Amino acid sequence: MATENTRQELETLGEFALIEHLTKEFKHTNKSTAKGIGDDAAVIENGNFQTVVSTDLLVEGIHFDLTYVPLKHLGYKAVVVNLSDIYAMNAQPKQITVSIALSNRFSVQAMEELYAGIREACEFYGVDLIGGDTTSSVQGLLISVTAIGQGEPDKLAYRNGAKVGDIVCISGDLGGAFLGLQILEREKQIYLEHPDVKPELQGHDYIIGRQLKPEARKDIIEQFTDAKLVPTSMIDISDGLASELMHICKASGTGAFVEEANIPINPETFQTALDLKLDPIVCTMSGGEDYELLFTIDPEDLDKVRYMADVFIAGEITEASEGITLHTRQGNIHPLKAQGWKHF
Amino acid sequence: MATENTRQELETLGEFALIEHLTKEFKHTNKSTAKGIGDDAAVIENGNFQTVVSTDLLVEGIHFDLTYVPLKHLGYKAVVVNLSDIYAMNAQPKQITVSIALSNRFSVQAMEELYAGIREACEFYGVDLIGGDTTSSVQGLLISVTAIGQGEPDKLAYRNGAKVGDIVCISGDLGGAFLGLQILEREKQIYLEHPDVKPELQGHDYIIGRQLKPEARKDIIEQFTDAKLVPTSMIDISDGLASELMHICKASGTGAFVEEANIPINPETFQTALDLKLDPIVCTMSGGEDYELLFTIDPEDLDKVRYMADVFIAGEITEASEGITLHTRQGNIHPLKAQGWKHF
Repeated sequence: MATENTRQELETLGEFALIEHLTKEFKHTNKSTAKGIGDDAAVIENGNFQTVVSTDLLVEGIHFDLTYVPLKHLGYKAVVVNLSDIYAMNAQPKQITVSIALSNRFSVQAMEELYAGIREACEFYGVDLIGGDTTSSVQGLLISVTAIGQGEPDKLAYRNGAKVGDIVCISGDLGGAFLGLQILEREKQIYLEHPDVKPELQGHDYIIGRQLKPEARKDIIEQFTDAKLVPTSMIDISDGLASELMHICKASGTGAFVEEANIPINPETFQTALDLKLDPIVCTMSGGEDYELLFTIDPEDLDKVRYMADVFIAGEITEASEGITLHTRQGNIHPLKAQGWKHF
Repeated sequence: MATENTRQELETLGEFALIEHLTKEFKHTNKSTAKGIGDDAAVIENGNFQTVVSTDLLVEGIHFDLTYVPLKHLGYKAVVVNLSDIYAMNAQPKQITVSIALSNRFSVQAMEELYAGIREACEFYGVDLIGGDTTSSVQGLLISVTAIGQGEPDKLAYRNGAKVGDIVCISGDLGGAFLGLQILEREKQIYLEHPDVKPELQGHDYIIGRQLKPEARKDIIEQFTDAKLVPTSMIDISDGLASELMHICKASGTGAFVEEANIPINPETFQTALDLKLDPIVCTMSGGEDYELLFTIDPEDLDKVRYMADVFIAGEITEASEGITLHTRQGNIHPLKAQGWKHF
């Protein structure tokens, strides 16, 4: 590389700002490009329907630790995190490509395990593996998955459609995957120091499952179709509720509040947070990898979600001037800060 | 990773066989999946036209060496190698996604250089950058590009359409990128041993350009459209002529011969091969990264290609029983062996 006069470090920007900075000069020239960078997925115009494309990169040592992540689970999860982005557009995933870089530390059997997980996800979600690239790496394993889906133009849900007065909804429960990771990391440290001590994972089945084998909310999208509901905005919760709510508010030019009492949290998640001396609400707000859906609906559609399985009404979209806040059980109003995952 | 009883090393299979092995149990369940793994790109049915998808992974230390590859050229090339796969389907690339994993060894300015090259390729080829993922890596730089294109169902060219008697054609010239790499590697070694010696690259402009800034043959596809020609089969030449011709013959169930005298080779490529004591024909057969097109046409279409710019008639498709052979200038018949790039 050439010497630079005033080197700027990557961490001064962070992931989102870096992407924005690097891609701001790119112009779109094709009529078929309906939506580029900046949502869960890009959208391509295809006449009667739209093609939705999302891509993710998982790097060993950054996104996963093979000390406690079985390869089959990793393959499954690598697919699921991409499908989650397609569902977050209110679209149906149809195809994936999977590219792998791996060192010769891995055997053919190890790759069979990984692909068994990929196949299980393909079968469960009804998507077809249509391509990819396999190459060696200097070190470690890297998985790049691109998911391709279909949606109807008047049914796709973007981040930028939330309006003042819309209801904020959340699927499933939050914070579990983050706390599952804390338990796995704790047991790894104990194992490294005392290899003869058995890992204590009992009582943590739910949260460890949330971390190792997350699911994308295909079922929620199906409920939308059945109820003829189109969310006004939607995003998947991969970086914690606070960060995702901010994405929606920024894209929509609004504020929002969520009620602490209405944020869904599993009892095991709650208890584990307390055991680890963590604030359960902070875990839901800033813990990553839940792959639940955060969406907003028109108040007229409230009855459609009221009895939907696993959907929780958590807050409301407000004027931008009111900021993005958490209403606590005690009646306080806290401005939210995004933490998300910082890789750099 | 779990202990395995009989560990099988990756290199016992090689890239193509590994992919085939890992994906053989995957079934397609979506009607829109027209073509999966096994061609230059996958094909998705979209009604009036088809969506074509191709993806590639470039890994530092495996596919490129930043000692002599400028980041801007790398960005350009990362896009081009994917577009080449789309053109090899006789389709038009429209969109790309770019995912990057990088260590904190890279500065923001370095990434700006990389993206300047990506943008130059997007502008030159008229494709839109619509998404991606940026993350940190433990070590080195990794680039994953997915290209999405459009084609008409009756105009897409697959690998499996060659028929006995079809004419084998090649665009451009072969072996240059491989010999450019040899020169760059030679000068790198000299530099490492004697940092004060200036690199001797003069007289090698053409082949170094072929290595550092390859182009995808958009112009050839345009000539096909103008001439109303649809190749019976096509593949891009990324792993050397021998390997690509074998892919076509295997997929089509045929044999083929090419005439040594008719394989296009640039004078600089030829001379450099001799200087380095390499056989120029072996360089065209097994040298990689030319990104030219190998295609077959019905003999009735011969007049359409005869005067096409930069298209060379090099051989003929035969019965499978006749094998895949090179007819030498001396009148000998040599069976071809695929070498291609072995990464494992």
